[in-house]
Amino acid sequence: MSDGLRVLPVLGLPEVREGDDLASLIAGAVALEDGDVLVVAQKVVSKAEGRVVSLGEIEPSERARELAVEERDARHIEAILRESARIVRVRAGFVIAETRHGFVCGSAGVDASNAPEAGMLVLLPLDPDASAVRLRARLQELAGVTVGVIVSDSFGRAWRLGTTDVAIGVAGIAPLLDLTGQLDRAGYELHATTIAVADEIAGAAELVMGKTDGVPAAVVRGLALEGEGSAQELVMPAERDLFR
Amino acid sequence: MSDGLRVLPVLGLPEVREGDDLASLIAGAVALEDGDVLVVAQKVVSKAEGRVVSLGEIEPSERARELAVEERDARHIEAILRESARIVRVRAGFVIAETRHGFVCGSAGVDASNAPEAGMLVLLPLDPDASAVRLRARLQELAGVTVGVIVSDSFGRAWRLGTTDVAIGVAGIAPLLDLTGQLDRAGYELHATTIAVADEIAGAAELVMGKTDGVPAAVVRGLALEGEGSAQELVMPAERDLFR
Repeated sequence: MSDGLRVLPVLGLPEVREGDDLASLIAGAVALEDGDVLVVAQKVVSKAEGRVVSLGEIEPSERARELAVEERDARHIEAILRESARIVRVRAGFVIAETRHGFVCGSAGVDASNAPEAGMLVLLPLDPDASAVRLRARLQELAGVTVGVIVSDSFGRAWRLGTTDVAIGVAGIAPLLDLTGQLDRAGYELHATTIAVADEIAGAAELVMGKTDGVPAAVVRGLALEGEGSAQELVMPAERDLFR
Repeated sequence: MSDGLRVLPVLGLPEVREGDDLASLIAGAVALEDGDVLVVAQKVVSKAEGRVVSLGEIEPSERARELAVEERDARHIEAILRESARIVRVRAGFVIAETRHGFVCGSAGVDASNAPEAGMLVLLPLDPDASAVRLRARLQELAGVTVGVIVSDSFGRAWRLGTTDVAIGVAGIAPLLDLTGQLDRAGYELHATTIAVADEIAGAAELVMGKTDGVPAAVVRGLALEGEGSAQELVMPAERDLFR
């Protein structure tokens, strides 16, 4: 049995606030090694970047009022609409939307849980790939290590219950592993097999992060990944999307 | 930093054939510990169970011939139709179907790669949950360990490129972790947050299994999971499915 992978929670991080140097907090909490992939929950990246709005500052539109059924707050719906490039489905006040980044997810990523205080909503980073690139560069600067960085979020899926964490920002790794043209053990070519390794890494990290216990980052050690890329590569192009 | 998780490939397994005692092969290849979750690729479970068909034995139906565009083999399409409870989408000879188990996936899980020989197709197990239960019981018998078992397969997703491995059979763990009612750090209740941990575990295992290098199983060690359940719990009920 080889050494395989280790998935290590980053413990002891303080509550993150706008303007915090997140890379510095992480570098102080964990001894990163070259080749590690650091997974950071979107929520703390957004907080550090000030991507938070107060419900009190939001004036709901007519459309938001229409959608706010079953005790849903029209101001919360309005925040979702503002973060959406396209509404994919709506049912019972629950909105599945495509964000400006092209991600299809519940509430366009707008979330009231784990917000700094009640009445606050946390939005997705404006450019999660850029967030990952900045974190990676700053960790190189502070700790002298070359790591991959994934900004992760919990997305629901079509056809399957429960959320899994996926990559919404990537730096220093290729998010897709393309096996097209490789041969299996019987010499049969693996047609069009592309593995979303960045999403699998984000999911693995979630297993040690949890949602409630204040572990917003994890390190995956032992991957032998090559390449570069961005989370935009994980977005299904519209012309190939059978479920718009 | 806590010890976190380890994800260990099970190395040295032989090519699996119909009738093989898969649990015995695995118990001989890896020292399992109580609380481990063993992830086994569907392909070897299906081979051990004889869920393989030869293209030569298949007479394509009229419908299969209609769908077999762009060099697709009508017999392969016919095998997909036979494994399908419902066709969800078809484009350019590529079929997304709901299997009899309720899983929505490409080609209803029918796959020519990693088949025992050219001209063979591997089908999903008839009852992957039952396969997981049998593997778990046999490992208990052979190695005296109490482990969770996941039978995994690589599924594509709506809206995102690339496959991730997910759980199609589960034994000895609860596949969903329901956080509804728990409070986050700010005391805000996490409404309707349910994490598909079995799918995240399957994805983590994929990272050490790969598709081409003959590692059809992996062990995830260090999870503190409770409960019982089946992969059927991961299937979105039709009445909640917005993407049928």
